[in-house]
Amino acid sequence: MPASAELMLALPLPLDCGQRLENVRIAYETYGRLAGDAGNAVLVCHATTGDQYLASTHPLTGKPGWWDRMVGPGKPIDTDRFFVICANVLGGCMGSTGPASPASDGQPWAMRFPVITIRDMVRAHLALLDALGIARLHAVIGGSMGGMQALSLAANWPDRAARVMAIGATAAMPAQNIAFQEVGRQAIMADPDWQKGSYYGTGRAPDAGLSVARMAAHITYLSEASMHEKFGRRLQDRAAKTFGFDADFQVESYLRHQGVSFISRFDANSYLYITRAMSYFDLAEEHGGRLAEAFARSTAARYCLVSFDSDWLYPTPESRKIAHALNAVGAPVSFMELSAPFGHDSFLLDVPALDRVVAGFLA
Amino acid sequence: MPASAELMLALPLPLDCGQRLENVRIAYETYGRLAGDAGNAVLVCHATTGDQYLASTHPLTGKPGWWDRMVGPGKPIDTDRFFVICANVLGGCMGSTGPASPASDGQPWAMRFPVITIRDMVRAHLALLDALGIARLHAVIGGSMGGMQALSLAANWPDRAARVMAIGATAAMPAQNIAFQEVGRQAIMADPDWQKGSYYGTGRAPDAGLSVARMAAHITYLSEASMHEKFGRRLQDRAAKTFGFDADFQVESYLRHQGVSFISRFDANSYLYITRAMSYFDLAEEHGGRLAEAFARSTAARYCLVSFDSDWLYPTPESRKIAHALNAVGAPVSFMELSAPFGHDSFLLDVPALDRVVAGFLA
Repeated sequence: MPASAELMLALPLPLDCGQRLENVRIAYETYGRLAGDAGNAVLVCHATTGDQYLASTHPLTGKPGWWDRMVGPGKPIDTDRFFVICANVLGGCMGSTGPASPASDGQPWAMRFPVITIRDMVRAHLALLDALGIARLHAVIGGSMGGMQALSLAANWPDRAARVMAIGATAAMPAQNIAFQEVGRQAIMADPDWQKGSYYGTGRAPDAGLSVARMAAHITYLSEASMHEKFGRRLQDRAAKTFGFDADFQVESYLRHQGVSFISRFDANSYLYITRAMSYFDLAEEHGGRLAEAFARSTAARYCLVSFDSDWLYPTPESRKIAHALNAVGAPVSFMELSAPFGHDSFLLDVPALDRVVAGFLA
Repeated sequence: MPASAELMLALPLPLDCGQRLENVRIAYETYGRLAGDAGNAVLVCHATTGDQYLASTHPLTGKPGWWDRMVGPGKPIDTDRFFVICANVLGGCMGSTGPASPASDGQPWAMRFPVITIRDMVRAHLALLDALGIARLHAVIGGSMGGMQALSLAANWPDRAARVMAIGATAAMPAQNIAFQEVGRQAIMADPDWQKGSYYGTGRAPDAGLSVARMAAHITYLSEASMHEKFGRRLQDRAAKTFGFDADFQVESYLRHQGVSFISRFDANSYLYITRAMSYFDLAEEHGGRLAEAFARSTAARYCLVSFDSDWLYPTPESRKIAHALNAVGAPVSFMELSAPFGHDSFLLDVPALDRVVAGFLA
């Protein structure tokens, strides 16, 4: 049975920007039971627009958890065996402290919220683990931005995880992805309803901008081949083109739906802060400019890196760079490129080979 | 010397949507002299956001023409030899009739302008050729959307061109590109200053939305490798990240500049109509569902197809499909994939191999 919980940190959280954040709240879900020696904990880190509802019904959408296929009794991340934790990231909008949370004056932080980093998100996770009495994780696992958190944890707190798994991740956001995320942020900030971020309580929110941001991002999560397969040039509920600007094509209708449904569950300012954290992510830069240096103290953990051949957002060479850095410091690492047609989103979808890799790595 | 000219069509232009467009104006540039037998004319078709300023200074930006490197005396498209024509497309905003032009009531068409197709753009070009007394082109050439026009001309009016060259083009917009263009249109239409398209004369225009659309599109014109090479993760005029939402990275600053400078030379409604025409483009569908059928009557022309190995917007397989269709009907075609690092924009940039191919094909 999943358990929903919330933790208020007793101490201020130090951030990479130099500020210390007071009254940090962390909303999280747990699955399974923590062993007496606290040695069976698995931290799963969610992706950009994910949340803590890993394998429990999402309270806003009513949909199953985003990794329901991977987490549960007898599943690859076996909750009969492991105590599985998933926390909403710092900066998020599903209960953890973020731009929509009240600042010390009782008003929402909005754009007064400090710019955070992936490492700051990990700091919040570690504070949660401390509170739960978990000194060393059996494993930390994540896909996409979740993988970045796993790598950051391993690099910066090498004694906190015995196993580190990063799926479809990168050690530093490539320029093209910085560019795509900048487009999304500009779409939000161009929306007059954004009101310089202070839209809370005004009855208006930058829904249109957030929807466009989501549409642009969503294209990057899919492969060209999967879009071709799924939609091609097929028309949406009509026999012929309308010679108009309605969603004539299925792919247009699908994208619009992705945009509109996203605004019901996500806060635009959280989207700004979380994508900013991703664009800032550069493990090598954090460690003197050399990626291997990032892992120099992390050789006691075992690593598993997975990429997908159809992922053009974080393609295989991004994972290979990490594998090379780990090899350079003699850390035990297995790295595999899996064949899956779904692009970057493959880590969320039906890829049985990934199930086997995850189960095997945790065993 | 370039000559700027404008033609008002004497007859209404029939459109694929079934309407007939009255008082169509076509703004065009010419270079070189038309031979007495009118046999030395080369029509160059421009891309999505291009214009007729092929090899002459752009009146709004003051920049050299977009194909200045390719067109001129002694250049691959040699104006000492050829009479070169480039017309602003129907639906455009540089003098040819488009949504900003007055309708019969004297008010701008805005969204009352009919939805046009690539074939309609070609109809306008042919009306211009008729007026100039050019029965058969020495060649029609274009890159990207210009290549689509060249293919449409060859398929639908097989006796009007002796040589047909399509660079980085496609015979039907793939789903991923329909998706990217839909994001751009949604960004424009989400901008309150768009005012359902009736922004002319209001002192407001959807600049923010158009800028976001341009930013998203611009990413697709470059290769990941060229963005990495050009910008990487380098910061813009600063020694460290600002922990804010300014354009910290060069690639962010570059993209914002692309967006902002675009609005000074382009009309948002034209962007809607032209991208709509592209998403509708499907040569096979126009000809009974079989691409070879499109070219069945076009076997007297010689074809040249060029793709670039770094172009992920219209990658090599798109050109290969066209080559196969031409092979199937026995049309003479040469097809080559050129190696160039710049992505889709390679056709506009310094790729000497392309110069040689163009010069050789026209000879």
